[in-house]
Amino acid sequence: VTLLTDFGTVDWFVGVMKGVIATIAPTSSIVDLTHQIPPGDIRAGAFALTASCRFFPRGTVHVAVVDPGVGSDRKAIAVQTADYLFVGPDNGVLSWALQRESIRSIHALENKARFLKPLSRTFHGRDIFAPVAAHLSRGLAIEKLGPDRNDFVRLEWPQIRRTERTVRGEIIYVDRFGNVITNLDAATLSASKGTRAHVFTRGKRLCPLAPFYQSVGRDKPVGVLGSSGFLEIAVNDGNASKQLKLGVGSKVEVRFQ
Amino acid sequence: VTLLTDFGTVDWFVGVMKGVIATIAPTSSIVDLTHQIPPGDIRAGAFALTASCRFFPRGTVHVAVVDPGVGSDRKAIAVQTADYLFVGPDNGVLSWALQRESIRSIHALENKARFLKPLSRTFHGRDIFAPVAAHLSRGLAIEKLGPDRNDFVRLEWPQIRRTERTVRGEIIYVDRFGNVITNLDAATLSASKGTRAHVFTRGKRLCPLAPFYQSVGRDKPVGVLGSSGFLEIAVNDGNASKQLKLGVGSKVEVRFQ
Amino acid sequence: VTLLTDFGTVDWFVGVMKGVIATIAPTSSIVDLTHQIPPGDIRAGAFALTASCRFFPRGTVHVAVVDPGVGSDRKAIAVQTADYLFVGPDNGVLSWALQRESIRSIHALENKARFLKPLSRTFHGRDIFAPVAAHLSRGLAIEKLGPDRNDFVRLEWPQIRRTERTVRGEIIYVDRFGNVITNLDAATLSASKGTRAHVFTRGKRLCPLAPFYQSVGRDKPVGVLGSSGFLEIAVNDGNASKQLKLGVGSKVEVRFQ
Repeated sequence: VTLLTDFGTVDWFVGVMKGVIATIAPTSSIVDLTHQIPPGDIRAGAFALTASCRFFPRGTVHVAVVDPGVGSDRKAIAVQTADYLFVGPDNGVLSWALQRESIRSIHALENKARFLKPLSRTFHGRDIFAPVAAHLSRGLAIEKLGPDRNDFVRLEWPQIRRTERTVRGEIIYVDRFGNVITNLDAATLSASKGTRAHVFTRGKRLCPLAPFYQSVGRDKPVGVLGSSGFLEIAVNDGNASKQLKLGVGSKVEVRFQ
Repeated sequence: VTLLTDFGTVDWFVGVMKGVIATIAPTSSIVDLTHQIPPGDIRAGAFALTASCRFFPRGTVHVAVVDPGVGSDRKAIAVQTADYLFVGPDNGVLSWALQRESIRSIHALENKARFLKPLSRTFHGRDIFAPVAAHLSRGLAIEKLGPDRNDFVRLEWPQIRRTERTVRGEIIYVDRFGNVITNLDAATLSASKGTRAHVFTRGKRLCPLAPFYQSVGRDKPVGVLGSSGFLEIAVNDGNASKQLKLGVGSKVEVRFQ
Repeated sequence: VTLLTDFGTVDWFVGVMKGVIATIAPTSSIVDLTHQIPPGDIRAGAFALTASCRFFPRGTVHVAVVDPGVGSDRKAIAVQTADYLFVGPDNGVLSWALQRESIRSIHALENKARFLKPLSRTFHGRDIFAPVAAHLSRGLAIEKLGPDRNDFVRLEWPQIRRTERTVRGEIIYVDRFGNVITNLDAATLSASKGTRAHVFTRGKRLCPLAPFYQSVGRDKPVGVLGSSGFLEIAVNDGNASKQLKLGVGSKVEVRFQ
């Protein structure tokens, strides 16, 4: 079972989710993806899940709880894919990861027999998502959780515009090192013609595309195809986000020669 | 075994506690409740333990180390309750959780054969509490750890004052989302008469009591019975502590109509 | 398997390392030493590993990834010692720990069959160190990873100068509580003559050496032999680093009487 939340690590919220899982499924192992998604930032959670879910063994249950609408009428879902199970609120946080998987079935979480009792209005991570994930990790059939659904809420992926020699996208995530990650993946970039490429921001040439951070001098910016499979802009031995004033939503263009 | 400390996650202190436990009890699983209790804040640690300990399986060993008096003459204890074992310094950090449990026996930790050697004066989390918890998780009888004791140090629970239609308490914890949690639990509130209620602070009406955060408009304050079983004040999609200038110790009154 | 990195806990980087390990070695347990080494601070990582590695069971695989040169031509190594295995970049991060162990063999990590495919240029923690550690934890012979090497890159230990009644060293680490840890260990101090000692900084007497933090009054500084086995300077119930303006590199002298 993996856990991805915006609960932080200051309080006991993640700890009690693990207690609930351990009570139901004592032999399941639990791995934290991250609990420091900015509070309520569904897109950051969706991207973190996309970047990490495929590095886990087949059969892993991925739980993502970034859930600003907890207690309202938003739905909760579990999704079976060819390789994994995904559990979370149906608010889009699962959607970017699911769009890269082969989906087998989608179920609404409505069978209260699999929830914690009493069910709180404010902490479904503990009361719904943790027990459901624990039951799934023990082998409970997904259809026992609630009725079939045809689809799930999808977040829009930031628009990509392309000409023969340019690709435009935007920054989708800033990591701990200040590297800024764009929505342009390897397939998107390799579809363009040209052997050399440069990254442009605000209409000005910023840096070359290169194989790794040290391809440029210290304190110089560089575009690399990062470990998550997306173009990222880094400053060698520096913090690209701060030094270049780039953040989520900043537009980026790659021009090939 | 659960671990709750004020050691933070920046240094290696929690890691070595886990190493000590794994050396003695290789098959015991370890869950972090939190390690970010403010340094030395016994009351915050006591509340976090109270809010989380009951979500773990029977037989769990709960270790709480918020221990500003480490190395002085404060005692260390292990307590057997009907469902759990608790281990920590006898400075009150265990007391609020223990007062909600059915206590079977209390033992001073004095049997040095169960401690790490050499025993440091500054890190009993590693040298006393981790090995003792590991031995208990392997089934060591609690009376092997040291002599029986009659009682433990109790922190005072902040005073609750009640009239027929009002209940007064105070804020006891601020969580990562800025929600402020009071010392008024469900039983205390339900003993009052009245179908509608409002929360007052500094003598002024602040907000209604409602079933969940979205019961009020965005950026509006609301009182809800939170997931820990205590009244909390939140701002829908905001940070109650910052926006309402409420912190630990702030007085709160609930008036029923 | 223990993990020590500068990846932080905000992103998913540590989570995917654990996913990679769980895929290869599902029954190996993983313990976090810390992931909050300051980005690229090889010396802080080296000290954290030194202070913690010996508290783990024999056979533990210690992985340390503080790797500002990832993607460049720095080497990667695995080292077998009498009690442990160490895995990481050959940039010195392992060196202070290794110098206290009894080394059996050193191997370069060159057998790409044991790496993740495709191998990224930016995230060897996930693509090289995690899978190699997982294979070692399952019992793979270390010589399968690559050719023997004679030595590893060694960080210089800050200089210690000694006269009959004085020892000079410097601060090497600041912990979460603001305690400042020096490079002077128990053996170094006990070699000096004198029954009483004082710590001097900037040529002025700062505080006595004493057995524990509470040996002095509240808010007073004190030198203690800390839990990691090194002299540290603390302020009782305070933050020594901030209050005394001491940080990594500050010079410290102990004078015995």
